[in-house]
Amino acid sequence: MSEAIMSEAIGEIGRLRARLKEVRARGASIGFVPTMGALHAGHEALLEIARRENHFVVASIFVNPLQFDRKEDLDHYPRTLEDDLHVCDRCGVHLVFTPTQAELYPEPQMTFVDSPALTSTLCGQFRPGHFRGVATVVLKLLNIVQPDRAYFGEKDAQQLALIRRMVRDLNVPSEIVPVPTIREADGLALSSRNKHLTPAQRAIAPVLSRALRQAVELIGEGERSAAVIRERALALFAPWPEARIEYFELTDPQTLAPLDRIDFAGPVLVAAAMWLGSTRLIDNMSWPAQ
Amino acid sequence: MSEAIMSEAIGEIGRLRARLKEVRARGASIGFVPTMGALHAGHEALLEIARRENHFVVASIFVNPLQFDRKEDLDHYPRTLEDDLHVCDRCGVHLVFTPTQAELYPEPQMTFVDSPALTSTLCGQFRPGHFRGVATVVLKLLNIVQPDRAYFGEKDAQQLALIRRMVRDLNVPSEIVPVPTIREADGLALSSRNKHLTPAQRAIAPVLSRALRQAVELIGEGERSAAVIRERALALFAPWPEARIEYFELTDPQTLAPLDRIDFAGPVLVAAAMWLGSTRLIDNMSWPAQ
Repeated sequence: MSEAIMSEAIGEIGRLRARLKEVRARGASIGFVPTMGALHAGHEALLEIARRENHFVVASIFVNPLQFDRKEDLDHYPRTLEDDLHVCDRCGVHLVFTPTQAELYPEPQMTFVDSPALTSTLCGQFRPGHFRGVATVVLKLLNIVQPDRAYFGEKDAQQLALIRRMVRDLNVPSEIVPVPTIREADGLALSSRNKHLTPAQRAIAPVLSRALRQAVELIGEGERSAAVIRERALALFAPWPEARIEYFELTDPQTLAPLDRIDFAGPVLVAAAMWLGSTRLIDNMSWPAQ
Repeated sequence: MSEAIMSEAIGEIGRLRARLKEVRARGASIGFVPTMGALHAGHEALLEIARRENHFVVASIFVNPLQFDRKEDLDHYPRTLEDDLHVCDRCGVHLVFTPTQAELYPEPQMTFVDSPALTSTLCGQFRPGHFRGVATVVLKLLNIVQPDRAYFGEKDAQQLALIRRMVRDLNVPSEIVPVPTIREADGLALSSRNKHLTPAQRAIAPVLSRALRQAVELIGEGERSAAVIRERALALFAPWPEARIEYFELTDPQTLAPLDRIDFAGPVLVAAAMWLGSTRLIDNMSWPAQ
């Protein structure tokens, strides 16, 4: 029986940098998984792939105030640090970065990273400032950790597109690795928000992934009209008026520009957001499957 | 007699990174001076300080289209690559990064860095988009070169304040080193734009630094009203109606917020922009002197 790796938790940027300098000096590659905590099996998949592809794995746990467009959402965001550290330990994470707000934002933030074209569509149109906050904190964390590779879930498709483009556009010297979405047996994508669902809402929730799957199947069968695909998808939600569709879009996966017709050879990203009561769920699928 | 150091010019990001990886691997510190070329004695001061403080010096020469608010300004910007390489050689620069536009912007740029509060005052109010372009390209270059230290002239005070704040706000792992302005004997701050001045304009130009010097002297003598100081400064320009003052401001050097009264212990930045014909000159001085 092997010894458990005990993850080391560090809250200070200076200490983290000093520790990672030693790691780099012995030639180890560094994989990084930034999170807001409330870790679930989706995060575990990120951590396990990071572990497989790198000598040394860093996770960060930081609920970033800059990306919350609604203060009550920030206040209600689940905080489960002790459980999270156990997950990190189990996944073989070597170092967990757990900064305070004062450590990451010692002064009022005056500098922001944004990609207006990528953050004004899909979720961005309903969450002003959210993706600017995401891009800014991710760049800060990449600059602090300076990983060889950083891991992001495909579940957050717009975030992933934004971060990938940011890293290319700004020549950030880290590779961004996308990790497929982890789903429950009935298709529901894992999310820390799922725990807010009532049993009745939980029973309805898988309709979102069924509608996405139907959309990519229709494209696979040759349907080329986004309007037809959307209409067929929305029909699946009809039996459940409690499910409020915020958007259901077919887009270019890189630019997130909406597509009216699927008339090119490249991939299509089908992305949707749905409210059940006060819980907002997002999900997406790609065609062809990646 | 020692051998002249022959600067090596590299245009490709990949080759530059590979070269700098070797440099870093042998433990050498890297100093970086980003420029748009048209090098003059002000740049030489930056290069010489970089040489003194680091084992290895990188300069970049790139006329960045993203920061030109007027296309004719981009077209007319002086390009003197051969002379510039001689200057680099003379100053002991080890490596000159000379990328093409296609190398730095292989795709349409979708990601931008900005600091709205720092870029909407002083020059920023007259040059929309300029400082967003500056911040974005400087971050790209810092990510490519990953220097220990990067050198910026105090002559471009707003640019310096923006870059220093960007580096702090985004946790960029490089130190920003400000370098004092180099002046002609009559006080005119060195600038690649000075060569556009007619002899008559050149004779008038030093009034800008005289007005700034008078302002910091008045503060030193105890004057605390920004309005009084401005009024006395503007009076100096009265004999030369050809000199059009764009702004003459007393500000906080970190936030660039305008000051009405000098009623705090901290430093004051007095900054001004002046047109002579179609040439725009900027200059600034600090109180207390740095």
